[in-house]
Amino acid sequence: MKSDIEIAQAAVMKPILEIAKNLDLKDDEVELYGKYKAKINLSVWNRLKDKPDGKLILVTAINPTPAGEGKTTTTVGLGQALSKMGKKAMIAVREPSLGPCFGVKGGAAGGGYAQVVPMEDINLHFTGDFHAITSAHSLLAAMLDNSIQQGNPLNIDPRQVVFRRVVDMNDRALRKIVMGLGGKMEGVPRESGYDITVASEVMAILCLAKDLMDLKERFGKIVVAYTYEGEPVTAHDLEAEGAMALLMKDAIKPNLVQTLENTPVFIHGGPFANIAHGCNSIMATKLGLKLADYLVTEAGFGADLGAEKFFDLKCRYGGLKPEAVVIVATVRALKMNGGLAKDQLGTEDLGALARGVVNLEKHIENMAKFGVPAVVAINRFPTDSEAELNLVRERCQELGAEVALSEVFMRGGEGGVELAETVLSVLQREEAKFKVLYELDLSIEEKIEKIAKDIYGADGVIFDKAAQASMKKYVEMGYGNLPICMAKTQYSFTDDPTRLGRPTGFTITVRELRLSAGAGFLVAVTGTIMTMPGLPKRPAATRMDIDAEGTITGLF
Amino acid sequence: MKSDIEIAQAAVMKPILEIAKNLDLKDDEVELYGKYKAKINLSVWNRLKDKPDGKLILVTAINPTPAGEGKTTTTVGLGQALSKMGKKAMIAVREPSLGPCFGVKGGAAGGGYAQVVPMEDINLHFTGDFHAITSAHSLLAAMLDNSIQQGNPLNIDPRQVVFRRVVDMNDRALRKIVMGLGGKMEGVPRESGYDITVASEVMAILCLAKDLMDLKERFGKIVVAYTYEGEPVTAHDLEAEGAMALLMKDAIKPNLVQTLENTPVFIHGGPFANIAHGCNSIMATKLGLKLADYLVTEAGFGADLGAEKFFDLKCRYGGLKPEAVVIVATVRALKMNGGLAKDQLGTEDLGALARGVVNLEKHIENMAKFGVPAVVAINRFPTDSEAELNLVRERCQELGAEVALSEVFMRGGEGGVELAETVLSVLQREEAKFKVLYELDLSIEEKIEKIAKDIYGADGVIFDKAAQASMKKYVEMGYGNLPICMAKTQYSFTDDPTRLGRPTGFTITVRELRLSAGAGFLVAVTGTIMTMPGLPKRPAATRMDIDAEGTITGLF
Repeated sequence: MKSDIEIAQAAVMKPILEIAKNLDLKDDEVELYGKYKAKINLSVWNRLKDKPDGKLILVTAINPTPAGEGKTTTTVGLGQALSKMGKKAMIAVREPSLGPCFGVKGGAAGGGYAQVVPMEDINLHFTGDFHAITSAHSLLAAMLDNSIQQGNPLNIDPRQVVFRRVVDMNDRALRKIVMGLGGKMEGVPRESGYDITVASEVMAILCLAKDLMDLKERFGKIVVAYTYEGEPVTAHDLEAEGAMALLMKDAIKPNLVQTLENTPVFIHGGPFANIAHGCNSIMATKLGLKLADYLVTEAGFGADLGAEKFFDLKCRYGGLKPEAVVIVATVRALKMNGGLAKDQLGTEDLGALARGVVNLEKHIENMAKFGVPAVVAINRFPTDSEAELNLVRERCQELGAEVALSEVFMRGGEGGVELAETVLSVLQREEAKFKVLYELDLSIEEKIEKIAKDIYGADGVIFDKAAQASMKKYVEMGYGNLPICMAKTQYSFTDDPTRLGRPTGFTITVRELRLSAGAGFLVAVTGTIMTMPGLPKRPAATRMDIDAEGTITGLF
Repeated sequence: MKSDIEIAQAAVMKPILEIAKNLDLKDDEVELYGKYKAKINLSVWNRLKDKPDGKLILVTAINPTPAGEGKTTTTVGLGQALSKMGKKAMIAVREPSLGPCFGVKGGAAGGGYAQVVPMEDINLHFTGDFHAITSAHSLLAAMLDNSIQQGNPLNIDPRQVVFRRVVDMNDRALRKIVMGLGGKMEGVPRESGYDITVASEVMAILCLAKDLMDLKERFGKIVVAYTYEGEPVTAHDLEAEGAMALLMKDAIKPNLVQTLENTPVFIHGGPFANIAHGCNSIMATKLGLKLADYLVTEAGFGADLGAEKFFDLKCRYGGLKPEAVVIVATVRALKMNGGLAKDQLGTEDLGALARGVVNLEKHIENMAKFGVPAVVAINRFPTDSEAELNLVRERCQELGAEVALSEVFMRGGEGGVELAETVLSVLQREEAKFKVLYELDLSIEEKIEKIAKDIYGADGVIFDKAAQASMKKYVEMGYGNLPICMAKTQYSFTDDPTRLGRPTGFTITVRELRLSAGAGFLVAVTGTIMTMPGLPKRPAATRMDIDAEGTITGLF
């Protein structure tokens, strides 16, 4: 089989204007970025806002393992399959981050015959959204240190600056720095550091904002530091939110591209699933629901983190009503959850599968707590035996979840028709009664406990001293009613990445609480969060090249 | 009179595809970025390379003063005037830097009725070129520190890393930092700092490269550090140049926009005039010469710095043959050169003017040393008296330079017709015999002395110890035959910004020599060079805003 980039380069793309026309978009609502990328003017919203919504389908997954699950690939493939069946379908996914591209990760626009194109552009600068975010973030950071330097009228305590800087690059050596060195003309010395751009609160805000004015207002609320008296200092205090919004005037517009099979795709925003909510912008999702009858979208990591945050943060803020959820699993990954090593996955092992399938079962049960019917998509591998597939089918059916095999990686949309038909039948048969997991008027502790007990299966939550102190402070500051953004390992229901399957008899430890007042959530940190990745010993960048004709090699 | 942004927002732009068609560009050679911006495919070069060149006209100026000269405005206005007269004219200028926009500077795309549009976009992210440069630079920096961290196979001395990081923001507090703190997993501690993106060697390379392969090769030559043995370490040693070139695949394509009067404009690249050569890309200039009969371009700062570097660096590397040079002067600025303060310029003062006009005279004489006929453009102000204008006219005519009044700020292209007619008559009458000032096989000292004596009028050059040591090292490394990029104050022919007019009896002190092996020049530093500006007490950003309809205020 060809590599992802070979398949992508051989794609026959339609001009994006044609894709836009098929969505009944008008010419002046489409801003071209080359022939195959476009930004969609937000004026479309006003034209279509009273139109009934299409059906929102979330794709999520079991806890990820090194065996790979193919969540984005299934998302793209399901959209392609729906299109192939004559449905008016759209896909909404996140923009990939530039930094990891040069490390180990490679592309992030699906795989095999279920990809979004033009993949080189999508994986490089695309339409500049992340650069705009980096600029808006950098401007606020520069204005903050400038204010300290220029007489410090806001009385900012340089030891209590919480707003770090960002760059869209894996740059380990910037994690911890001392800045402002060199004497009185060169700034005030203080400790700080860099995160990767996707971890910026500006990114989280872009993805949760309703429109440009909401974006600006949220920017103003970002808490960047505290005064010597402990009072919060915001971006609004620095008069930064207007210029920040200005820098985001184009980034706020969703980007339209297409799949290998010409299904329209919105790619817009990419908040870090580690420290933010990990799904594409509310604006893209809501617009997609007006333009298509079926909008397929995804949420980062496994369902315990990604789907929970999709429901409790994105759907809550966006007023979205998901009608079905697809849980992607592979027999291989379930066997890893059952204790097998990566090199043992090629042969049938019903015992390991039975030990591991409990992970999937817990995710199915969880989805019911949000009132959304679940379909399990088994992303099929050649090594899967009939007996193994039957075991998974039986377990799911006992829990009332439909199961479908998916072969979109090898066969594109055609390989997703079984899955699409299953989803359509569930949509027709069952009416979703979506509800969020918790109400905002619960205490911070209660909200976190509810997530930990109901979704992770924990016995309880331990709050470290630092977390307790922060909780008290945030309540005093008036942020006690914010929803929670969990920061937890994606590999386990617990906060220990080695405990696979469906662990019981454990507690979750919240070590720290961080405030994202602009995005509108409290981050509950349960382990070490990496907000700035490093490059590996031999970065992928060393293998990349471009020739005189512009042909790219080594990108993935 | 309306403000610049009001005039720009009222402009009636033509679709950029129409502008491109008028230049005989084919549809598939034009990549749209919205309706009014486009990138031009480099394939055009192959189609047109055997076509005879149009005439290249450089716009430069006297030494700048706080009174303002209007160099970019005159450049744009001259292009507009040539178009108005039915000539096939184009303009090529630099891209403005995002950072200074939020400080004090404001826009950098002309002024009044001689502007390039859409000015908001040009002054914000434009087509993402500067972001691509920041990314390519950041990638190389991250790969460098990663190599040190991952066992340091290249034996890099962390105390001898010369490659700093960049960001396109005025961020004073990043000038001097200590990075790599936090323990053995977080990089190797070392001193470093940030420059503004326009000061990146990646930017200088973009503007001097012939094509994508030349760009990549030059990237590979960037010297980023020295080993413990003192041997240079390059980007090629880090295997970074392929991925860097990949990141620049679109940035390398010139950007097509238009003036208020629909004259086509290439805006491409913007190297810092302080530390690099300060003019737009060779690729844009060369392509413009194929597309138009007259290409008007400009060079940063006054003619002693900007024009000299344009001739000796850009024209040398690009094989360009300028045919006329326009020196922009104002009566006001000449009076400041004659000793008046800024608040004394409103009344006639022939004595001060006579004392200051010598600055202009020296620049006229200098242009003759490059074999290019000069036209003086007096950017007219309402306060200029006839007697003052006559004085300037007479002095110029004594030196054989034609003089024309320009009123393009107030009247657009129509206000530049006198200037355009003068330029055209000079082009018809005189044949330029362009030559560079010095040959590359002179020693580094000789090259610098030639510039200092012939162009600045200095008696000689003093080389500080550090400069002498660097010279010796660069000669040993094989870089003795590179051309020189002078880093000197723009306010004076001397290295002392307070000595205006036409000083004599002075020496130039070279304190330091820096190697830009990729760009292909040695920077002779004669004073403090600022490579990272700071924000003022009340940044322009605090006045900027955007409303729900997307209308921008306070940008300029």
